[in-house]
This record gives sequence, structure tokens and C-alpha cells, in this order.
Amino acid sequence: MMKPYILRITCSDRTGLIAGITGVLYGRNLNIVVMKEFVDQQTNGFFARCEFTGNTDTEALREELTDVLPSDATVVISQYREKNIIVLVTKEHHCLGDLLVRHHFGELNASLQAVIGNHQTLSDFTEKFDIPFHHISHENTTAEEFEHKILQLVGSYQPDYLVLAKFMRILSPSFVAKLNNRIINIHHSFLPAFKGASPYRQAYDRGVKLIGATAHFVNNDLDEGPIITQRIIPVDHEYTVAGMVEAGHEIEKSVLADALKLILEDRVFVSGNKTIIFD
Amino acid sequence: MMKPYILRITCSDRTGLIAGITGVLYGRNLNIVVMKEFVDQQTNGFFARCEFTGNTDTEALREELTDVLPSDATVVISQYREKNIIVLVTKEHHCLGDLLVRHHFGELNASLQAVIGNHQTLSDFTEKFDIPFHHISHENTTAEEFEHKILQLVGSYQPDYLVLAKFMRILSPSFVAKLNNRIINIHHSFLPAFKGASPYRQAYDRGVKLIGATAHFVNNDLDEGPIITQRIIPVDHEYTVAGMVEAGHEIEKSVLADALKLILEDRVFVSGNKTIIFD
Amino acid sequence: MMKPYILRITCSDRTGLIAGITGVLYGRNLNIVVMKEFVDQQTNGFFARCEFTGNTDTEALREELTDVLPSDATVVISQYREKNIIVLVTKEHHCLGDLLVRHHFGELNASLQAVIGNHQTLSDFTEKFDIPFHHISHENTTAEEFEHKILQLVGSYQPDYLVLAKFMRILSPSFVAKLNNRIINIHHSFLPAFKGASPYRQAYDRGVKLIGATAHFVNNDLDEGPIITQRIIPVDHEYTVAGMVEAGHEIEKSVLADALKLILEDRVFVSGNKTIIFD
Amino acid sequence: MMKPYILRITCSDRTGLIAGITGVLYGRNLNIVVMKEFVDQQTNGFFARCEFTGNTDTEALREELTDVLPSDATVVISQYREKNIIVLVTKEHHCLGDLLVRHHFGELNASLQAVIGNHQTLSDFTEKFDIPFHHISHENTTAEEFEHKILQLVGSYQPDYLVLAKFMRILSPSFVAKLNNRIINIHHSFLPAFKGASPYRQAYDRGVKLIGATAHFVNNDLDEGPIITQRIIPVDHEYTVAGMVEAGHEIEKSVLADALKLILEDRVFVSGNKTIIFD
Repeated sequence: MMKPYILRITCSDRTGLIAGITGVLYGRNLNIVVMKEFVDQQTNGFFARCEFTGNTDTEALREELTDVLPSDATVVISQYREKNIIVLVTKEHHCLGDLLVRHHFGELNASLQAVIGNHQTLSDFTEKFDIPFHHISHENTTAEEFEHKILQLVGSYQPDYLVLAKFMRILSPSFVAKLNNRIINIHHSFLPAFKGASPYRQAYDRGVKLIGATAHFVNNDLDEGPIITQRIIPVDHEYTVAGMVEAGHEIEKSVLADALKLILEDRVFVSGNKTIIFD
Repeated sequence: MMKPYILRITCSDRTGLIAGITGVLYGRNLNIVVMKEFVDQQTNGFFARCEFTGNTDTEALREELTDVLPSDATVVISQYREKNIIVLVTKEHHCLGDLLVRHHFGELNASLQAVIGNHQTLSDFTEKFDIPFHHISHENTTAEEFEHKILQLVGSYQPDYLVLAKFMRILSPSFVAKLNNRIINIHHSFLPAFKGASPYRQAYDRGVKLIGATAHFVNNDLDEGPIITQRIIPVDHEYTVAGMVEAGHEIEKSVLADALKLILEDRVFVSGNKTIIFD
Repeated sequence: MMKPYILRITCSDRTGLIAGITGVLYGRNLNIVVMKEFVDQQTNGFFARCEFTGNTDTEALREELTDVLPSDATVVISQYREKNIIVLVTKEHHCLGDLLVRHHFGELNASLQAVIGNHQTLSDFTEKFDIPFHHISHENTTAEEFEHKILQLVGSYQPDYLVLAKFMRILSPSFVAKLNNRIINIHHSFLPAFKGASPYRQAYDRGVKLIGATAHFVNNDLDEGPIITQRIIPVDHEYTVAGMVEAGHEIEKSVLADALKLILEDRVFVSGNKTIIFD
Repeated sequence: MMKPYILRITCSDRTGLIAGITGVLYGRNLNIVVMKEFVDQQTNGFFARCEFTGNTDTEALREELTDVLPSDATVVISQYREKNIIVLVTKEHHCLGDLLVRHHFGELNASLQAVIGNHQTLSDFTEKFDIPFHHISHENTTAEEFEHKILQLVGSYQPDYLVLAKFMRILSPSFVAKLNNRIINIHHSFLPAFKGASPYRQAYDRGVKLIGATAHFVNNDLDEGPIITQRIIPVDHEYTVAGMVEAGHEIEKSVLADALKLILEDRVFVSGNKTIIFD
């Protein structure tokens, strides 16, 4: 069966937008499989995602849609395409392992081009799956040089997204700016609680009764980017920090996998510091 | 602020339905606040719920919409209106208490016209809230006569919905047929597990690790009607039957409250033995 | 059936504590119904809660137990007794309503002596349940005077616990110190995220994908006391602040009810800024 | 640090059991790290699991404990030891992949000796992790012969447990009887709902609002054995059967992993058709 096209529209809201959009599609005999839209009352922003089938000249369609939309509209029409991703890791394997197995069986909805590690730890494991592993150490070098090497390597792959799968180095604003809304991080707490280092230690010290994980886009402020997915699990006084770390791994991998699935299916819109997700 | 109109459409699916519907609304200068639709691939059924604002002749609008829709279309346009409900109980107070408090503070989104109990137990409690309580005993009478009395009383109130809030009598097919998709029951298990009597006892005997509650429409087959909402909580070997009953009360009330909220906001469509819910 | 005694022990840990404690009980022919204990490796603290049945001189038992325990041991033996509580409110009714209904049906495991409100709003509702309502306004008075009036009134009731059921005034350190670990608050966020005012507004602005509630003991630092229970529910971009407030009410009442149940059954130990809970 | 011993006791309940057990341990200068016990009021069964450290002659300890316990007592003392497991699969990789990655990184708390598949599908993937894969086809053979071949192979490995990780063949009572309480299965529903074939299809047809997974011991009756762990996720009308299958995979693997962790740490007791779990 033909994969549907995906149409994504962002613009300011006004009466008649849905009638305009669906009228154009109907006029071209295109069949809407699913359409979801949202108006952010706070910003007056209109967001729509539509899957449609049929044969069409997408550039002409884009122009016709632009004509019926406000002048600030962004219209993206893409035929379904596997995205390319690069995964950055340090030493922890649980998120990487999950992604590699999904990728191996064609379930990731993306081509995992390469893994970059600031340690060698996960090299052998990655290569079991015939994925190239690049070791770029952060030691004996400046942060600038370290990031420059990563950017060069990333540039040679041209990925759609960078996935920080427990990559334990903080990226500089200039690095992040080069890949705006294209870097996804998994943070091991229910943000905004327990930002920064050792969130499970912080959770233990605070005596919380639940621990969590958050997948988010990375922006200039550490752990402050738009949140994509979050999940928690209950804990009690019997949990040590090590017990929290172990239990937390399970939600870290599922939260990251969920976020990636949503992003790779073009379901996530970023609006300011928030996400709008049509799942 | 003016309450929006609610438009509900059910018909067979074909290309152009959304364009047709939204075109009609736009042509009448009506503003869509939110619109959600669903195509059931299995039955080719199309379901849509739309909230819109503006001034319009709803009957003329209904006719105009009918003209652009398949001949099997059902179109309902209602200005927001509080529904009327009657609650049936036996002896347990937890669901009734929850409904009475919500109603008292205007949070139920309905007018609770009366409570009918087959025992007197909850009479005083109900009357604290200035709601009439009618005792119709199932004892020393036939099932037919018992149901006849209820129907007569219900007939005098003309409610939109009957809510069985732990009403522990089984209603006959002829009773149910008279109020098709207008009776909501809360069953204290995650259906289809543990139908019928004593579901917590059944759960205890089976040694499950979670217990649940299900709100559903009542049809001819006991505990077989379309499911609206379900929720579970974890249990372990330390739970006695009584402990399960106590813990279960908490989810019974929240599951029933959630289901009622969805129904009273016209968010629930029944399609065969399933529900489609636009929340 | 006779209610069991509850034995609570806190001391520093050493080998043989359980053998010592259970040996004393066995020597007196007392039957352990359930016993749970915990050693906090970080502080070397030992905590035990035991329910036992049988006839005994509790003071003699306490002394005999003290003899087999480290010198820093605290031993409390209480025959089951309903605690007394006073509830403080402002204008929101959802937590109060939940407590009043439970109390009315004898399910709160406590005697609700009185409700104190800094507004009159909930007076009529409270009195429906034959519970005295005291209005102590925070207006046209100093904070000291306001708290002094509350303390005087509380003093006349001698409650075991004060329950802040959406009481929207901050209590001073001197007030809190007078009722150490005896004031329970419900905060409408998953602490430590979103402390202080308007947590749902903060949650909305941050774009989180879950909102929560936390019941905790009150200490000098706002929203920093030992956490008893926490729960979250998922939200998405469609939630307004008002929608979060409404959805949040549901977990606020259940989280507070859960915490109270644990406290009123003597299941909660406070250790520094954490709780140890034998449920 | 020395791994603790694990002491497991099952017997009929009577007063003084805990005092007796802990007295024996204290008399031998053994230090209890954690002890949990449970009395099943229904069967008068006493179950205890204790971790202790220190040096001892375990056989002499076992005898001394037996002397203070009822005559029906079963006492098992084991120094911590990695169990051996064999995994049986058909074609689905998600549970196997999860187990292989955990095993590869030493997180499974077991030695995964071999994988047996009734199809070749997962052979290459298994061998990536240097684990032997044995293909035993169920085709062109009788059920007896098929099971005989499996038993012979299993016999050559002498595993502690057989893990059915989406093994889609029903095992005969005689097979199951040979490995009583040593076969763990993952079933893709919240049992007892949707036993047997195609539970997601059954769930779709019933229109449930949650789907689940259950890990259980296998006994003679299909999907009727003692339940170890269960979990659910919410679904709605937008889920197709395929969507449920995909979403369900995530909980299947986590439920099976959780169950295995509990079993491999000797935390699970079977009592009739139920499990008692000291986690």
C-alpha cells in the first residue's frame, strides 16, 4: 500500500483554516486518512498535521495551500521517508541497546547511521549490529575542539536528528544552535525537578516517592528545552540510589523510544518552549 | 462567553467529508473551536464532533450539512445544555457521594434529578444535598413489578441518562431496550475479566496483580455493553478481598466520574459494541 | 475481634534486634499479626512497626523491650485508637468534600473535630455533615494574630493532626514548630518541581507532559517537608491551566486521602527529611 | 562484599515463628539484612524470605531451624548463585532481544545457556550474542516427538528455568509436569481476560480501553498458572489490532523482565494458584 503523504502546517489562527485546507485537498481528489489540528489560545498559533493519499504535485499543492493560509504559514509536505539519526553515548548501554535492537529489526523508523561515544565502552556492542562506532574523547582536548570534531563527523553523515542516549557531556550553545530542534536528549528525572548532575542522587536525598525520565529537545539552557515525553515509576524508602538508577533505566529507554517514534513520524511541533504532539 | 454549539455527525466514510462539513460552517461564518473525527476502517464509519461558535439557524445548518453528507448521515447540533440524570444505588455510598458532592458544587455538568435506591440505606445522605431519594424495594415483588415501578418514576423525570452507581440488581432486556445507550453502569473489574457477581472475590481467588473498574453502557448481556472508561490499580498478595474492595472503591468512583463527564459533554459515540471518544 | 496493638520502634541498628523484639513478644505469648522493619544504611537507623494481639501490660512490655534495644530506642505501644484531626481550608472544596464524606461513613479512621477556614466559603457545606466550621479571617489582622487565633482554637480541640486541605496561607516557622510532624499539607505539584504559588500555571508554562500532587509534612521551608505520597496524571498540549486545575483536583484528593490513611494507621515514620512507610 | 545468604521458609503458621527463626540466626551470630514474611489467613500458610550475612554451616543451620519450625516446614538456604535459564521463542524478537541485551551486559542475574526456536527466524540474532540457538521444528512431526526433542535438549543443559519468550506452541501437561513451577510464560493480555489465541484481536473486538501483559508460571491449564507480574497501558478507538500489537510489545518485555528478576532473586513463592512475592 502506498505510504500516505504527511502535511504539516503552522500559522496564526483565523476562521476558515480547516475548510480552506481540506477544500484544497478535496479539489485535488486527495483522501485525508487522518487530520489533527490545534489552536494555541495563548499564542493564537494554528498547528495541523494531515496524512493523505492520492497522486499530486506536492510543490503545486504547497503553493495552493499557501494561497489560502495566512502569510505567516509554514507548509511542509513530505512523502513518508526514513529519517537519518546519529546516536551519542558515554558508557551506559541501556538506551543504545534498545535503539540498536529496534533498528536491527526495522522498527526504529529511521536509519541509524552511526554511534559516537566519548568513551570506547560501547564500541564492540555497537559493531555487533554493523553500525559504525566513532570514539571522540573529551579528554586531553578543549571543549571547543571536542565539539568541533563531533560536528565535523556529524556533517559527514548529514543526519536529521542527533539522539543523546545518556551522553553525559554538556553541549555548548553554539553547538546546539547549529542543530536547532534537531537534538533530542533523555534526562533521568521528571523535569523540571532534578536538573543537572546526579538526578537519582538528588531524588534519593529529597525522599521523593516517584522517579521519572524526560525526553526533550536540547536548547541553550541545560535541561530546559521543549519536553516531548515523560514518565514516572513509584519508589519507596527501600530504594537506594543504585536501586533508583536500575529502575530508572527501564523508563529512560521507553521514554526515549516513545519520543523518537513521535519525532520520526513527524508528529511533534515545537512552539516556543513547548511541544504540540499529534499522536 | 457564549457556550459553543456541539455538532455530532455519524455516517459512512467517503472522500471530502471534512472539506464538506467545514466548508458549510465557514460559509455561515461559524468559527470552529475544536473538531475531531475518526474513520473506523473496519466498518467504514465516519464520526465527527465539532465545537463551533457564532450565530446560526441550527435547523437550516443541519439541512445544509445533510446535503453534503452521505444519505445515512446522522447530524445532531445542540447548544450546550445541562443533561438530566437519575442515579440508582443499592447500599454502597462511595460513587453516590462523589456524584452528590460534584453536583452540589456545580461540577457535574448535569442536573441530578433524583436518586432511586432498592434499599433505604442512602436516603438520609442523599437528602443532605436536597436531592429527592426514592426507595423502591426489590423485595416482596416480582422483577417485572420492580422494574415497572422504576420505569414509571423515571418516566416522571424524563432524564437523559440513568447512572447505576453500584446498583446491584440486574436489569431485564426489556428494561434496557427502553433506554438504549442511556444507562451507564460501573462494574468493579477490568472487563471482560470477572463479569458477574463478586468480582473482587474472583480477583482474589485468581491471584491477579491488578484490580480494576469499568464504566460501560448497559445492554442485554450482563457486563457486555460498550466500554467507556477503565482503570486499574496494582495489588499484591497482602490484599484480602476486603482490602481489594476498599482499594477498588477509589477507582470505581473516578472511573464512573470520568465516564459521566465524557458522556455529559457529548464526547462519546457508540459504534456497535465499542465507543469512540473525542476527549 | 480485638483490634491489634501497634508497636513502633526507632533506634540505631545492630545485630539481633528482630530476635530481641520478637523474643520478648513471644515470651509474653503475644501473637504477631504483621511486622515490618527497615534499616536505613545511610543513617544506620532501625525502624519497625508490628501489629500484635494478646493481653499484656503495655508499660511492662515497653520496659522489657527497651531493655533489649539500644539506648537511643524510642518504643511506642498503642492500642488502636481513632485519631483526632482538624482540617484547614480556604475556598476549594474538593479535598474537604472527600474527607467529609469518608468521615460521615466512618471510613476516615479519625474523628474530624472541626474545619477552620480563612474564608466563609465552605461553612454551609461543612455544617451539612454536622461538623463545626470556624471562620478565622486572615484579613485586617497581622499574620501573628491570625496564627495565634488558629492556635488557640486548635488548642481547645487538642487534635493529633492538622490537615491543610488546600489551605492557601503560608504558616510561619514558629507555628509549624509547635506542631512538629503533625501538620499535613497537599501541594498541587510533584514536588520538588513547582514549589510555591500557582504550580499548575508553572506546569503549563514549562510545557510538562505530566502534572502531579504531593502530600507532605509541613516544616519551616515551604513545600520542603518530608514527602508522604505523590501521584501524577498525564497531560498534553490541549490542557489549559484551568484544565490542569480541574484534572489535578482528582489526584489532590486521592493523594491526600492516601497520606492520611497511612498516617492515621501509624504507618509513617519520619527520618530527617524523608518518610519510611510500612504499608 | 560478600553476597548474602538467602533463607526461604514455608510452613503452617503458629505463634512464635519469627522469634524462633531470628533467635536461631542471632544465636549463630548471623546478621539479618532484610527479612519479609507473610501469613496467608486463608490457608494458614507462613512464608518467609530472609537475607543474612556471616559465616555458617548451612546444613547445621537448616537443621536447627527445622527444629524450631512446624513439621511441615520447608527450609531452603542458598548462597547467592546465578541461575541457568533457557529461552524458547517462535518468531517475535522483542522479548528475546531484551533478554539477550540484559544478559550481554551481566544484568540478567542468570546465565542464558541457549535459545530454542521452533522457527529459524531468530537464529542469527541470537548468535550475535554468542548464545547457542537450537532449531527444533514443530512441523512434520508429532507433538510428542517435538516435546521430546525439547526435553532432551533441555536435559543436556539442566537449566533452573525455562522462559517462554513469545513461544507460540502449547505445551502438554506431561511436559509441564516435568518442570513444575520452572516454566515462565509471557501472555499478551491482562489475564484472566483474553486467554488463548490472538488476545489483541480479542481486545480490539471487545473495545477495551486498556491492554495488558501477564507473566505467569505455566501449569496444565492454558494461561491459568500462578500470576507473577502484570501491567497495562491505555488504548483508545484509534488503535488498530496492529497498533495494539506494537504497543503491547513494550509491556510484554518489561513484564517478563520484571517477573524474571523476581524469580532469579528467589523472591517468588508459589502457593496453590497464587504467588507471594517479597520484593
